[in-house]
Amino acid sequence: MKFLSPVLHVTGLLIAGLGIAMLLPALFDAVRGNPDWQIFVVSAIFTWTFGSLMALATRGGGAMRLSVRHAFLTTAVVWISLSAFSALPFLGLGLDYDDSLFEAVSGFTTTGSTVIVGLDTLPPGILLWRALLQWIGGIGIVVMAIIILPFLRVGGMQLFHAESSDRSEKIVARPLHLVGFIGSIYVGLTVACAVCYMFAGMTPFDAMCHAMSTVSTGGFANYDSSFGHYQSARVDWFAIVFMMAGALPFVAYIKAIKGAPAGLWHDSQIRTFVTFVVVVGLLLGVWLSRTTGLGVGESVRLAMFNVVSIVTTTGFVDGDYTLWGTLAVGLFFLLTFVGGCSGSTAGGIKIYRFEVLSIIVRSHIRRLVIPNRVVTMRYGGRRLPPDVPSSVLAFLAVYIGTTGLFTLLLAATGLDFVTALSSAAQAIGNVGPGLGPVVGPSGNYASVPDPAKWVLSAAMLLGRLELFTLIVLLDPDFWRG
Amino acid sequence: MKFLSPVLHVTGLLIAGLGIAMLLPALFDAVRGNPDWQIFVVSAIFTWTFGSLMALATRGGGAMRLSVRHAFLTTAVVWISLSAFSALPFLGLGLDYDDSLFEAVSGFTTTGSTVIVGLDTLPPGILLWRALLQWIGGIGIVVMAIIILPFLRVGGMQLFHAESSDRSEKIVARPLHLVGFIGSIYVGLTVACAVCYMFAGMTPFDAMCHAMSTVSTGGFANYDSSFGHYQSARVDWFAIVFMMAGALPFVAYIKAIKGAPAGLWHDSQIRTFVTFVVVVGLLLGVWLSRTTGLGVGESVRLAMFNVVSIVTTTGFVDGDYTLWGTLAVGLFFLLTFVGGCSGSTAGGIKIYRFEVLSIIVRSHIRRLVIPNRVVTMRYGGRRLPPDVPSSVLAFLAVYIGTTGLFTLLLAATGLDFVTALSSAAQAIGNVGPGLGPVVGPSGNYASVPDPAKWVLSAAMLLGRLELFTLIVLLDPDFWRG
Repeated sequence: MKFLSPVLHVTGLLIAGLGIAMLLPALFDAVRGNPDWQIFVVSAIFTWTFGSLMALATRGGGAMRLSVRHAFLTTAVVWISLSAFSALPFLGLGLDYDDSLFEAVSGFTTTGSTVIVGLDTLPPGILLWRALLQWIGGIGIVVMAIIILPFLRVGGMQLFHAESSDRSEKIVARPLHLVGFIGSIYVGLTVACAVCYMFAGMTPFDAMCHAMSTVSTGGFANYDSSFGHYQSARVDWFAIVFMMAGALPFVAYIKAIKGAPAGLWHDSQIRTFVTFVVVVGLLLGVWLSRTTGLGVGESVRLAMFNVVSIVTTTGFVDGDYTLWGTLAVGLFFLLTFVGGCSGSTAGGIKIYRFEVLSIIVRSHIRRLVIPNRVVTMRYGGRRLPPDVPSSVLAFLAVYIGTTGLFTLLLAATGLDFVTALSSAAQAIGNVGPGLGPVVGPSGNYASVPDPAKWVLSAAMLLGRLELFTLIVLLDPDFWRG
Repeated sequence: MKFLSPVLHVTGLLIAGLGIAMLLPALFDAVRGNPDWQIFVVSAIFTWTFGSLMALATRGGGAMRLSVRHAFLTTAVVWISLSAFSALPFLGLGLDYDDSLFEAVSGFTTTGSTVIVGLDTLPPGILLWRALLQWIGGIGIVVMAIIILPFLRVGGMQLFHAESSDRSEKIVARPLHLVGFIGSIYVGLTVACAVCYMFAGMTPFDAMCHAMSTVSTGGFANYDSSFGHYQSARVDWFAIVFMMAGALPFVAYIKAIKGAPAGLWHDSQIRTFVTFVVVVGLLLGVWLSRTTGLGVGESVRLAMFNVVSIVTTTGFVDGDYTLWGTLAVGLFFLLTFVGGCSGSTAGGIKIYRFEVLSIIVRSHIRRLVIPNRVVTMRYGGRRLPPDVPSSVLAFLAVYIGTTGLFTLLLAATGLDFVTALSSAAQAIGNVGPGLGPVVGPSGNYASVPDPAKWVLSAAMLLGRLELFTLIVLLDPDFWRG
């Protein structure tokens, strides 16, 4: 219990905070005269009370001295319990528990799969709550990826220590100002995005909601047809820019603001990421124009929008790209695995892991050809820390293995192969759309069987927490300490 | 040219040998009075002459002192050119070049996908040629895996150095007696399998052909319905035993014969492999019996047969398991990746790599939980050589990446997603059946577009040569060397 105290204390504080956030949709519904405001107020009171009591009961447990084990456990407990409480308003609005939890987890993990049909006619409160969940989840993952994960050395993220200091037992003291900085950048990007969307013709409310789910690379939209609703080149291009912005490493923004904007392009991750997206988007666009006879401009926009949406793990859709032919289907499936940059709101395997992977494979090939050669592995000009290659490779192996396992679990609930495989892949990558009529870009998760919704919820959380943050909790040694 | 001489010399000798092998089907056709014997004789003369001239022209180039680079290049050139010459009889028998090469590569790599419809009525020569290709390919891969690949350190196979000596520049001298030993075991297993098949009711000819494609874990059958033709429990169980036998490490047989039969079970690979297959087969069998109402005995046999067939990468089929429901489809897709033991005729990722992987992942988790702990990675009681983890992981990453790339290439030829993905996976694993109506267990590769046949042929060769043996040839350093 003494070990759990600080974990529960932090969790309680954050749950109380979530309760306060529920008042925002209540306000919107009240202003528009929609009775749903009562549901949000009741949920808010319950959530705030529960969180506050929990925090009070566990006060003074040394909350400010978190060990590695505390950090793992806190991260897991916070994400799971915040997801559970976020589901309360959905429950109050009439969704059953499977659907409510799915929608909350999908929101909070910035996945963006929805089980709600008829978004176009929903009152503002629930739409705002969905956007807000993604927005909170987005900043949550950025903070976690910059402050906590490098400290935990999960999946090679020690490459991105915010400070060059070694792993220490205290993580809370120094980085607090960093959190403030990141938060300001996040708010700034969101406001800029909302203004652009309004300029492109969205209503202020839509612009606000969509800005929140764009910058968080979330993907919840206020319309069943997602961004296809607008049929607007201007909206699409702004979305492309801000989805990309959400998938860039937030530390790079700080460096750029502190006087080295050119450094953005010197960051190996950013360069690879932007080049990859632009090349794939352009090639697909030109190919699309040739095969469909659409104008090159429109083809490139549609291709770029959907490629950026999947690679940044946002999941907005503009037109059903699975109707573009077999090559496009195969391509979008593979893009589901790519992901954005480390320390961003994006999910997936992430670009830097592919970079490290390619360094490892090339050095392996060199050693095969000339066995006695000493090969130094370098990343971004610096020597790779010795434990990074195996961390990255272990992550990749577990990522692929988890996708396989969840495919099997989903198939066991009766989903066909394409639906099971693609929805497992998109859930673990926090992407949103899969393939096929049910979970594809023009589908909806409502008709997925209830057990599959639970499996997908687990997959989304696993993926969001970079797998190992949850997996270590299954190691008996973890509990022996 | 001086560098290429020994490579071409060895290749020439083996091509000449392949020419001689073509006389065997000629003999069978001649005895049965089928005019096809002429095609085999013409192919044999052409092949033998070409190979002999090539060997003669490159004589004295220091063939007995192969360097690492020679070994890589020879391996690649031998497999590609033998496949090309093996296609000659199919060409003579009326298949077009795409189909002939596909059938030859599928045979030689022991994959077992066929483009021939109407096997049941074919003359004996061509059926024997198909079986013979698999048999030659099978012993080829065993010799390569035991003698050459550990020396090349491809994909962590240095774990299985036949001798514990370090990598030396001479590989031909000592292991020649080993090749003889392995060959005898291979012949012995094949004869035993043929006798069992005859005992179970096959004709001597069918027993011989099927024994060759069983022990080589190849999968070519003499009937369109594969082993479904027999509807015989006895045939199935014998096939199960000998498919497993072909997928065990041949070095273990040598040890067992030399007086330590209990050692078979102490071999970590064998134990994991047998346990895995039995557990999965039994569970699937019981599940099948429950969902279909078939008797438990028959369900377990069908499940075990098809699980063993896919995991050993043989590819015989008894009944269309893709009709068993979504869970079975997902399961068989995942089983496509597993593969047999190292130093066997089986393809796929192979059991020992999963063992090494699980060791790496567990040690990674341990280090996450207790950062300062020193974790020693052990395999089979011995410390893992330091370069094995990264070799195995690089192999896995490239295996998955290659599967993705070939899925895309196949999708570009117009194959739908399931067909493209599953046929890429089965080809790289040298398995045989994929999923879906075209390439699934009751399908046939005849209707696949011609470009896809070339892509699949390349995938089969890449997989058979453990990927890196071909990939290193693309490294400019290899040629500068």
